[in-house]
Amino acid sequence: MTSDIEIAQQARILPMDEIAAKLNLPAEALELYGANKSKLNLHKLRLPADARQGRLILVSAISPTPAGEGKTTTTIGLGDALQRIGKSVCICLREPSMGPVFGMKGGATGGGHAQVMPMADINLHFTGDFAAIAAAHNLLAALIDNHLHQGNALGLDLRRITWRRVLDTNDRALRQIVVGLGGKANGYPREDGFDIVVASEVMAILCLASSLADLKRRLGNIVVGYRTDGQAVTAGQLQAQGAMAVLLKEAIKPNLVQTLEHTPALIHGGPFANIAHGCNSVVATRLALQHADYVVTEAGFGADLGAEKFIDIKCRKSGLRPHACVIVATIRALKYHGGQALSALPQESLSALKQGLANLQKHVENVSTHYGLPCVVALNRFSQDTEAELALVQACMAEQGVKVVLCTHWADGGAGAEMLAHEVVRLAAAESTMRLVYADEDTLWEKLRKLATAVYGAADIAAPAQVKAQLQAWQDAGYGHYPICVAKTPYSFTTDAAQRGVLAGHTLTVREARLCAGAEFIVLICDGVNTMPGLPAEPAAHRIDIDDQGNVSGLS
Amino acid sequence: MTSDIEIAQQARILPMDEIAAKLNLPAEALELYGANKSKLNLHKLRLPADARQGRLILVSAISPTPAGEGKTTTTIGLGDALQRIGKSVCICLREPSMGPVFGMKGGATGGGHAQVMPMADINLHFTGDFAAIAAAHNLLAALIDNHLHQGNALGLDLRRITWRRVLDTNDRALRQIVVGLGGKANGYPREDGFDIVVASEVMAILCLASSLADLKRRLGNIVVGYRTDGQAVTAGQLQAQGAMAVLLKEAIKPNLVQTLEHTPALIHGGPFANIAHGCNSVVATRLALQHADYVVTEAGFGADLGAEKFIDIKCRKSGLRPHACVIVATIRALKYHGGQALSALPQESLSALKQGLANLQKHVENVSTHYGLPCVVALNRFSQDTEAELALVQACMAEQGVKVVLCTHWADGGAGAEMLAHEVVRLAAAESTMRLVYADEDTLWEKLRKLATAVYGAADIAAPAQVKAQLQAWQDAGYGHYPICVAKTPYSFTTDAAQRGVLAGHTLTVREARLCAGAEFIVLICDGVNTMPGLPAEPAAHRIDIDDQGNVSGLS
Repeated sequence: MTSDIEIAQQARILPMDEIAAKLNLPAEALELYGANKSKLNLHKLRLPADARQGRLILVSAISPTPAGEGKTTTTIGLGDALQRIGKSVCICLREPSMGPVFGMKGGATGGGHAQVMPMADINLHFTGDFAAIAAAHNLLAALIDNHLHQGNALGLDLRRITWRRVLDTNDRALRQIVVGLGGKANGYPREDGFDIVVASEVMAILCLASSLADLKRRLGNIVVGYRTDGQAVTAGQLQAQGAMAVLLKEAIKPNLVQTLEHTPALIHGGPFANIAHGCNSVVATRLALQHADYVVTEAGFGADLGAEKFIDIKCRKSGLRPHACVIVATIRALKYHGGQALSALPQESLSALKQGLANLQKHVENVSTHYGLPCVVALNRFSQDTEAELALVQACMAEQGVKVVLCTHWADGGAGAEMLAHEVVRLAAAESTMRLVYADEDTLWEKLRKLATAVYGAADIAAPAQVKAQLQAWQDAGYGHYPICVAKTPYSFTTDAAQRGVLAGHTLTVREARLCAGAEFIVLICDGVNTMPGLPAEPAAHRIDIDDQGNVSGLS
Repeated sequence: MTSDIEIAQQARILPMDEIAAKLNLPAEALELYGANKSKLNLHKLRLPADARQGRLILVSAISPTPAGEGKTTTTIGLGDALQRIGKSVCICLREPSMGPVFGMKGGATGGGHAQVMPMADINLHFTGDFAAIAAAHNLLAALIDNHLHQGNALGLDLRRITWRRVLDTNDRALRQIVVGLGGKANGYPREDGFDIVVASEVMAILCLASSLADLKRRLGNIVVGYRTDGQAVTAGQLQAQGAMAVLLKEAIKPNLVQTLEHTPALIHGGPFANIAHGCNSVVATRLALQHADYVVTEAGFGADLGAEKFIDIKCRKSGLRPHACVIVATIRALKYHGGQALSALPQESLSALKQGLANLQKHVENVSTHYGLPCVVALNRFSQDTEAELALVQACMAEQGVKVVLCTHWADGGAGAEMLAHEVVRLAAAESTMRLVYADEDTLWEKLRKLATAVYGAADIAAPAQVKAQLQAWQDAGYGHYPICVAKTPYSFTTDAAQRGVLAGHTLTVREARLCAGAEFIVLICDGVNTMPGLPAEPAAHRIDIDDQGNVSGLS
């Protein structure tokens, strides 16, 4: 079988100006990064005379499984299919994190014949956005410790510095550390830790900022810790926001690339909807909607995580409104949710499938009822899927009034998602009916309760007294109108990754809360979630290689 | 007065293909990074039919002072001047580190009317090389801790892991840390620390590698620590070199930019000759010599540090040979070396100047006698310099048979360095007479003694018994033929930065030794040297800003 990277390496690639022309983007806005990647200079863009008001299509999925569902692949295949049926289209994806590329998950550029190019570059440093975010984040961290070392004029409490450090590497040894050891010249010893770059508040700020000016404003509002009297101290008080914004001046420009079928794709902003808000940038999505009739975007993991944050954070704050939602599933993954062992997935099992369909049903309910969006199920076809299994999925979805469309874009490219494209065009014809799960004026605790009960089916919510007190303190300090960003396992509706089948009646327990006054939301971290992943026993790094001519192998 | 960044922002910039054409580089090798930066794809370069065997000019300086001497500025001004007098020329510089840009030192793109462009971009992320080096370095660190966590099959001694982590931020709090805290899930607690990226062995490997294949070979040879039985463990045993090389596949491509006067400049590889080898890449220098008749390059700090490493490490290992050396000085800085206070530098003082000239004399002696190179002193002119002071410098240098050429390229661009260019052409006419300071077959301890006595005028060398035993162990293990890379303060010939005037009779004490089996040298760290800088009381970050249109201010 041809590997993803081999397919990508054999593909013909069009000059970037031809891709930009499809979106009617002015040539002078195109800043090349090598032959096949480019950034778009926001200051050289102007609203085209025939500016569009594109329809926004959100691609989400069932709860992820080790079997793989193909959400990014479907996003790309759907974009290619819309182009094939004659629509003007732009895909909006999130940038891959290098941590998982060398760990377990692999890249995030699609697969088979539904990929964005250049695959290896996008999965590695791409145009340097993550490095810039890490540099800005860590500059602020260095300025904090330097401020302490130089006399601590702001009176920061060494025990309550909340700004950690970041790296784009899966590195569990850095989760909890002690810095400042070795005596007076090295500053004050204190507890600290590293998160992965995508979990940085700077990533969320970059994704949610509407402009360079808004970016700088938000950076200045970041709360880095507290004084001994309990007052918050901001990055602005440390005079950090100007230098941080300078470090991000290229990163805020959206990246333009193309699919194997030369559909334009903007790849901009961060993944990881389990520990971050996990949506691509507002700047890129807005730009795409002005330049294409259909914009296909994705949000991470299942519709409970990424799609919820897409609605309740990104859309709430930006005014963007999706017109339809695609929920990606596979029969293999549904059988896994129904309790079938990984090794037995190729075998037909109507009973496991029936049980597993409950996962899909709950996601469909969330999207239709709680987010208010018309949806379609995209079923990525495997050769082992039986007719009886397919019929069962269709019958089950018919009860919820939702169509199931079979897709083969992995094998066939855009041609394999044309039926999906037609259904999406039909669903997206009307004005957006999007609903928010909770209101701005709900208290932070009420927001969590509404979200947990509606989307996760939880009977109750819980948190240590300290976390509750912290939420109350933020409520009192004027942060109560912020949306919440729940960090939890993507594998279950509960906070226990192993509980595949539980859809209701559980308690959602929050372990920790983080104020993101620049991103303007509050992160609630559930049990079992790590903001710095580790490497597996056999990391992908062992298999990744390059030959003397510069050809990369082992990326997937 | 117009600031450096204002001059740079007002400059006309030529399309990169016109710059590449000056060097007869094939258009298909040019990979643009934005409009005004590019990488050169090594696999698409071919030796031109009229391949040159350029003359290599090394620019060095007196020991640096807070007054500033202008070494990079002179390198650029000389390149521009050579172009003005009709020579085919390429400048080879080192990439700036972002740490000092936000700390104290400022950028490294020259100044006044002798600058490389685009100034802000080069001083910030440039083309991502430092980020790639950091990513490769930290991936190896994560693989080490993961190896321990997953069972430590190689039997690494937790107490003797020598591979640290890196960041391109001045951050003293990370110099000495404890990682792996928080229980079983986070790995094994152990002592660790961060260096600045330029001090990474990966940076040295990138700079010294002759090709992608050589890069991968060297990465595999990195020693990361020792087993409990004392055996070294390598990156190759951790299967890390393939993935690390993949992360460096773009970084190994030299970066092409232009000066204000459109002279081609390759900027590639690391600075910091105090804590690293501090030379630009072998790949870039070789490429320049094939495509230009004159190649002007620099090595960091005074001729004792950067130039020595240029000769004894870079030239020794690569076969490159410089034809002449320029030693940069200013009357202000010489008076500072003679004991004049910073605030009094504008005032004439022949006595301070006379005393300070001893510093220049020793550097001239080192270059002429110990490195065997013909040299010229480039005196960067300030308006306060008096005729009597100039005459004194000239008379003093005449005794050593060395010309002093007055330069005004800071104010006048290349026109201000034409006299220097003519003298350099004269000096570089003959074949290289370069000499090495010590021989490969000298023991490591003998190498240090030869270097310390010849170049630093030391009467003796010293090291703790533990360091001596370590050097003997490496000698016995077959690393004795490696050159040494002395990390010491650049401000004095002694290891005490405050001892400006001492030229002889002192003892050079080494505190720590690090084996770089990939870079193929041994770092000897002297007292008072830090491989991770800190930020000053008033960091440059406080002044650096960007306006809503994306214009950067405060960079210098």
